Amino acid sequence: RINGDRLWDALMEMAKIGPGVRGGNNRQTLTDEDAEGRALFQKWCEDAGMTMGVDQMGNMFFRREGTDPDALPVYVGSHLDTQPTGGKYDGILGVLGGLEIVRTLNDLNIKTKHPIVVVNWTNEEGTRFAPAMLASGVFAGMHTQDWAYERVDADGKKFGDELVRIGWRGDEEVGARKMHAFYELHIEQGPILEAENKDIGVVTHGQGLWWIQITLTGKESHTGSTPMPMRKNAGLGMARITELVHETAMSHQPEAVGAIGHCDVYPNSRNVIPGKVVFTVDIRSPHQTVLDDMKERIETGAGKIAADLGLEIEIEEAGHFDPVAFNEDCVAAVRDAAERLGYSHRNLVSGAGHDACWINRMAPTAMVMCPCVDGLSHNEDEEISPEWARAGADVLFHAVVETAQI
Amino acid sequence: RINGDRLWDALMEMAKIGPGVRGGNNRQTLTDEDAEGRALFQKWCEDAGMTMGVDQMGNMFFRREGTDPDALPVYVGSHLDTQPTGGKYDGILGVLGGLEIVRTLNDLNIKTKHPIVVVNWTNEEGTRFAPAMLASGVFAGMHTQDWAYERVDADGKKFGDELVRIGWRGDEEVGARKMHAFYELHIEQGPILEAENKDIGVVTHGQGLWWIQITLTGKESHTGSTPMPMRKNAGLGMARITELVHETAMSHQPEAVGAIGHCDVYPNSRNVIPGKVVFTVDIRSPHQTVLDDMKERIETGAGKIAADLGLEIEIEEAGHFDPVAFNEDCVAAVRDAAERLGYSHRNLVSGAGHDACWINRMAPTAMVMCPCVDGLSHNEDEEISPEWARAGADVLFHAVVETAQI
Ligand SMILES: NC(=O)NCCC(=O)O
Ligand SMILES: NC(=O)NCCC(=O)O
Repeated sequence: RINGDRLWDALMEMAKIGPGVRGGNNRQTLTDEDAEGRALFQKWCEDAGMTMGVDQMGNMFFRREGTDPDALPVYVGSHLDTQPTGGKYDGILGVLGGLEIVRTLNDLNIKTKHPIVVVNWTNEEGTRFAPAMLASGVFAGMHTQDWAYERVDADGKKFGDELVRIGWRGDEEVGARKMHAFYELHIEQGPILEAENKDIGVVTHGQGLWWIQITLTGKESHTGSTPMPMRKNAGLGMARITELVHETAMSHQPEAVGAIGHCDVYPNSRNVIPGKVVFTVDIRSPHQTVLDDMKERIETGAGKIAADLGLEIEIEEAGHFDPVAFNEDCVAAVRDAAERLGYSHRNLVSGAGHDACWINRMAPTAMVMCPCVDGLSHNEDEEISPEWARAGADVLFHAVVETAQI
Repeated sequence: RINGDRLWDALMEMAKIGPGVRGGNNRQTLTDEDAEGRALFQKWCEDAGMTMGVDQMGNMFFRREGTDPDALPVYVGSHLDTQPTGGKYDGILGVLGGLEIVRTLNDLNIKTKHPIVVVNWTNEEGTRFAPAMLASGVFAGMHTQDWAYERVDADGKKFGDELVRIGWRGDEEVGARKMHAFYELHIEQGPILEAENKDIGVVTHGQGLWWIQITLTGKESHTGSTPMPMRKNAGLGMARITELVHETAMSHQPEAVGAIGHCDVYPNSRNVIPGKVVFTVDIRSPHQTVLDDMKERIETGAGKIAADLGLEIEIEEAGHFDPVAFNEDCVAAVRDAAERLGYSHRNLVSGAGHDACWINRMAPTAMVMCPCVDGLSHNEDEEISPEWARAGADVLFHAVVETAQI
């Protein structure tokens, strides 16, 4: 069993970097706070005897050697970056859980056949630079590195430049590493485990996603003196599309979700009819057919809404992944570990996207989930109990070590 | 007649300060650009022999003496501040039109019985600091100066501090001045004069307005993993209220307008359900009963929308003026001037709020309007012709001088 107190202390220590305003974290990717968090993680890993590799996307790999020089490593990890109003666990638990596995192996003086590599993937959250899971996506060959470097944040800064600025662009070619398997521990970010009083989620599938960025262009003009029939109100178009996204997701209950979280309104003045709005639709489903249907209905419907209001519409795909089925052997290793350790468990479909969803395309992959209070995540009030963290890391430990022996 | 070329040159010269990105202006109140514009205006006025007074709201008054030492001055002017995506004429034409009157009187060596005072009112637009027409409102006793000083912009900066920072807080007590009359020349900001091919709008009334600032608080949470029934989506609430405002205004056609121009979404991340939105409803009508009805329906309806979605709602009044009827004698002076000069004209209800609407409460007041292309304003593409400007300033000249002799 892992050391739950040590894991919890590490979580609390990391949470001091980039504190939020309400007890959570704001440690967005490629900020100074991200660099500080990376340095702390590096120190911990090197203190635990691991050696670092960093690739050209800033992905950090810490290696503990195995006994078989020819065996591919088992990878384990997640991400240290957070949402602007993020919690202390989303991503961090998976990275520090990986570190805790190695610390425990060191304590117990266990040698594994396969090396173990603990990884921190860059820019999982995708808030500052869309899409989410950007660096694991490049690693898995889903995006080119050049394209990733050109992603810009709201201030126009480029991913590639910011990676250099914080000093974390490594030399390693991205995706050159071969894996025996990959495991990711993560908080559920949903309410099911807590509601059913289960310790562990055995993640069998992940939802598919589309991020559709829509720009509506109307005509900014005076709110008081422009007659209603002469208006081209881009804000009204955004409102109607917001409702359309909601209705479309509701029509597929409980097999779909959807909302608009990002909205920019120009010129954003009380007495000016919005001349331009830019916003991103986020729709998800575990079923490809449902996802396709939603995308088609929203894009067609948005086009009609724009035409009705005399608006120009531009639709861009800002992020996408298909529904995922994780590797059966790895999933079984997670389930067996929970069973063996006496933790209650159930199968889960991940509602969120994870680095594991991309890595699954190139290596046998599975995920372990633990509950979180009220299913709340992407919120500073995100909370888990030390017991939940311990159980998750215990299961991760057993699944990883099991896999690293065969 | 005034000198139309000189007036146009002054407009083009002022437009060089705080240029926009598309040929218009971004010279928002109490910015460095505002200070620069004020300094240029001061130079022109002093060169024309006028003496300056500045009050504690930064309102600028330039006086040309009259022949009767006991006669109250006739005031004429408007505002030099612009929207973030503003035009070159909204406000500026009225201020520089006032200057052009004095320059013309100087050319013709005419002495008026009453002094003439050309005024630039601070913060008419209300974008940076709500409400609009803030300083003329304090002048007319509608707000206290202390309250005005506490208004904050989006960066949390206070009106009072910014006024000091740009060096334009004067010593004069605000509103102490007494006026014989006030005239304001302004572009129509609507389509009627151009459509009917009229040179001059004789403004008899102004619409009333409510700015209702609404804060909806839900719960930010993960867009992918929060089940639809567990969401508290503040962005969806804003969308529904946007539609409600539109429908309410449409139900009173053509006697009302309404829209939402200002929207801030938190935390504004693609994969976070909005936990908070702050936005401002702008509704207007020339009829008090219509305005009251709209306000009541929107506030009640917004409350229901919020309750349906499990959102908390906070409603604040961010700006208000009742419908205005301008002074009959002053209105007649404008109409007579247009008639005498051979300009085609029609009565108008102002769709926008103006400093004249507040000053009308303390002194006989009227407004002159000239057409603008496509009725477009609060847009960098706002345009007028030199002939329209000339006609407007000619009518202003005659109405002001007529009033200044009696
Ligand atoms: N786990 C997580 O919050 N990932 C961010 C990508 C997503 O929006 O699902
Ligand atoms: N004239 C003008 O645009 N005034 C700003 C106040 C308003 O919104 O009507």
